[in-house]
Amino acid sequence: MLKAIQLLGLSSGSVAYRWKPHGCNGSMSFSINPLSCSTPKTAPTKPPQLLPRSSPSKACSLRVTRFQSTRSESKMDGTSPSASSSSVTVQSAGNVRNIKFCQLCGGPTKHEIPDGEEKIRAICTICGRIAYQNPKMVVGCLIEHDNKVLLCKRNIQPSYGLWTLPAGYLEIGESAAEGAMRETWEEALAEVEVVSPFAQLDIPLIGQTYVIFLAKLKKPHFSPGPESLECQLFSLDDIPFDSLAFSSILVTLKLYAEDVKAGNVKFHYGIIKKRPGSSPSDIRAYTLDHHLQS
Amino acid sequence: MLKAIQLLGLSSGSVAYRWKPHGCNGSMSFSINPLSCSTPKTAPTKPPQLLPRSSPSKACSLRVTRFQSTRSESKMDGTSPSASSSSVTVQSAGNVRNIKFCQLCGGPTKHEIPDGEEKIRAICTICGRIAYQNPKMVVGCLIEHDNKVLLCKRNIQPSYGLWTLPAGYLEIGESAAEGAMRETWEEALAEVEVVSPFAQLDIPLIGQTYVIFLAKLKKPHFSPGPESLECQLFSLDDIPFDSLAFSSILVTLKLYAEDVKAGNVKFHYGIIKKRPGSSPSDIRAYTLDHHLQS
Repeated sequence: MLKAIQLLGLSSGSVAYRWKPHGCNGSMSFSINPLSCSTPKTAPTKPPQLLPRSSPSKACSLRVTRFQSTRSESKMDGTSPSASSSSVTVQSAGNVRNIKFCQLCGGPTKHEIPDGEEKIRAICTICGRIAYQNPKMVVGCLIEHDNKVLLCKRNIQPSYGLWTLPAGYLEIGESAAEGAMRETWEEALAEVEVVSPFAQLDIPLIGQTYVIFLAKLKKPHFSPGPESLECQLFSLDDIPFDSLAFSSILVTLKLYAEDVKAGNVKFHYGIIKKRPGSSPSDIRAYTLDHHLQS
Repeated sequence: MLKAIQLLGLSSGSVAYRWKPHGCNGSMSFSINPLSCSTPKTAPTKPPQLLPRSSPSKACSLRVTRFQSTRSESKMDGTSPSASSSSVTVQSAGNVRNIKFCQLCGGPTKHEIPDGEEKIRAICTICGRIAYQNPKMVVGCLIEHDNKVLLCKRNIQPSYGLWTLPAGYLEIGESAAEGAMRETWEEALAEVEVVSPFAQLDIPLIGQTYVIFLAKLKKPHFSPGPESLECQLFSLDDIPFDSLAFSSILVTLKLYAEDVKAGNVKFHYGIIKKRPGSSPSDIRAYTLDHHLQS
C-alpha cells in the first residue's frame, strides 16, 4: 500500500519512524528508547514467567543510531537489510514518553501510572485523555497457483530488490482478510480469494503482528504494482530464500515449505524474537519462540 | 487488566471512548462519526469486491447518542449490553478528522490525502508527521480443565454480571500469547499455558480483532481478580449462552462447543459484522462472515 512514514515511537531527543513506502519527504530515522520500564503499581503480583519475554533490559541495549532514508520506504517488519548504515540495529517500539501532546485538545501530557493501571501512560494534563499504544497488524497473502507461490520483488526501500509476500498494515475499518486482499491488489495487481488462515507471527520488539492467509488467484493474472519491480511464481524448490526481504517472510515461507512437503498445511502461531543488537540486514538473526500449530 | 478509558476515535463536536475497566473519572461516551469516506487518489483501481465490506455508508447510519458511564468500564468489543441508555447503538472507530493535534510537537493537523496514499490522514502542519489509525488486538484464553471451560463474571461495566473469557488489549512489547496469559492472570488469577491458537475474530466496525488461544491451567487454582465477581468452570452443556458479555465471546464459545462435539477442535478465522443500528445489548445481532478454518 502506498503510504507515508508511520511513527513507531518517540523518545526525548530522538525520533523513530517506521518506514512506509512512498510519501516520505526526505525523512530520517533513529533507533528509539526502549519500552516503558515502569513497575506495576496496583495489579496482582504476577508469576515471573508471565512477564513479556522481550524484557525492557534487553530493549535498553539497543543502540541509538541515526541514518538517512529515501522517500520510498518500507512498512514492513523493521528488520530488513536496507538500512544505509551498517551500525543500525533493530528498532523497538513504544516509548510512552515520546507522546508529548494530546491528539484531541493539544494539551501537554504527563507520564504517570493512571489509577487502577499498571504501566506509565501519556495522560493529557488538560482533558485527561490517555494515549494508549498498541501493536499493529500486518496482513498479507501467500498465494498458491499451479504448485507455486507468488512473490513480489520490492521496488522500494528498505529491502529494495528483495522478495516478499504482498502484505501491509491493516487499516481501521477493514478485516484482516480484506486488508490482505487489498494489499495483494496494490502490490501484485492480483485479485485473490483468501482460502484459509496460515500464520500469526508476532514481533513484540517492534510492536507488529503478521497475519498471513493462504489465497488463490481468482484470475491467472498478476503484474507489479507501484511498490514492486516484478512479481513471479516460484516452485517450492526455487523460492529465493537467500534474497528475502524480512525475517517474517522467511519464517512464513519456511513453515509453508515444510508443511507442503509433509503433506499437511497447518495454521501456525509463533513469536519472532530478533537477536538483540543484530543488524536489520540479518533476517536470520531470530528465534521462533512459542511455535504452536492447529 | 486495570486500565482507564481508551479513546477509539473523535469527531467534531463529539467524543468517543472505548470503555476500560477502572480508572475512568466519571467519563461519558458518544457514538462517533463514521470511517473516513475518502476517495482513493493514487492507488490502482480496485475490483469492487476487494473493498471493505463494512462500508462507510453503513457506518454513517449509526446514531449519535450520549449516555453516562460509571468509573469501572469495559475494554471489550464495544457491543455489550451494559449501556445505560436503550437507544445506544454500536460505536464505530476511526474518524481521522478527530485527530486535531500532533502527539509529537503539538502542532495542529490538516486532513488530506498524503502524496502516494489513498486515504485522508491527519498530517501535522508543523512537523509533517502522519497519525495513522490501526485496529487493535484483544487477546484472551479459552481455558480447558476437566472437560470444562473457565469463564469470569464481570465485576465492571459494561456487561456487569455477565460471563466472559479472560481477555483484554494487547500491549506494545508483548506477544499475543504473553498478553493472553497476562490477562488471564489479572482477571482469573490463573496461571496458564497456551496450548494452541483457536480463533481470530475481526470486528471491523469497531477496529478490533480478537485473538483467542486454547490454554490449560498450570495449577488447578483460580479466583476472581479485581475485574471479576467470580470465576467458574462450565461443562459445554452448562455454558451460560444467554448471559454472555459480548458477541465475540458468544461466537468463540459456539465454535468451540461445535468443535468439541464434533471431536475436532480447529483454528477459526471470521469477521463479526454487527447489524447496523443494533443495540450493543443485543450480542446476537451479528453475522459471522468469511468463516475459514484450518
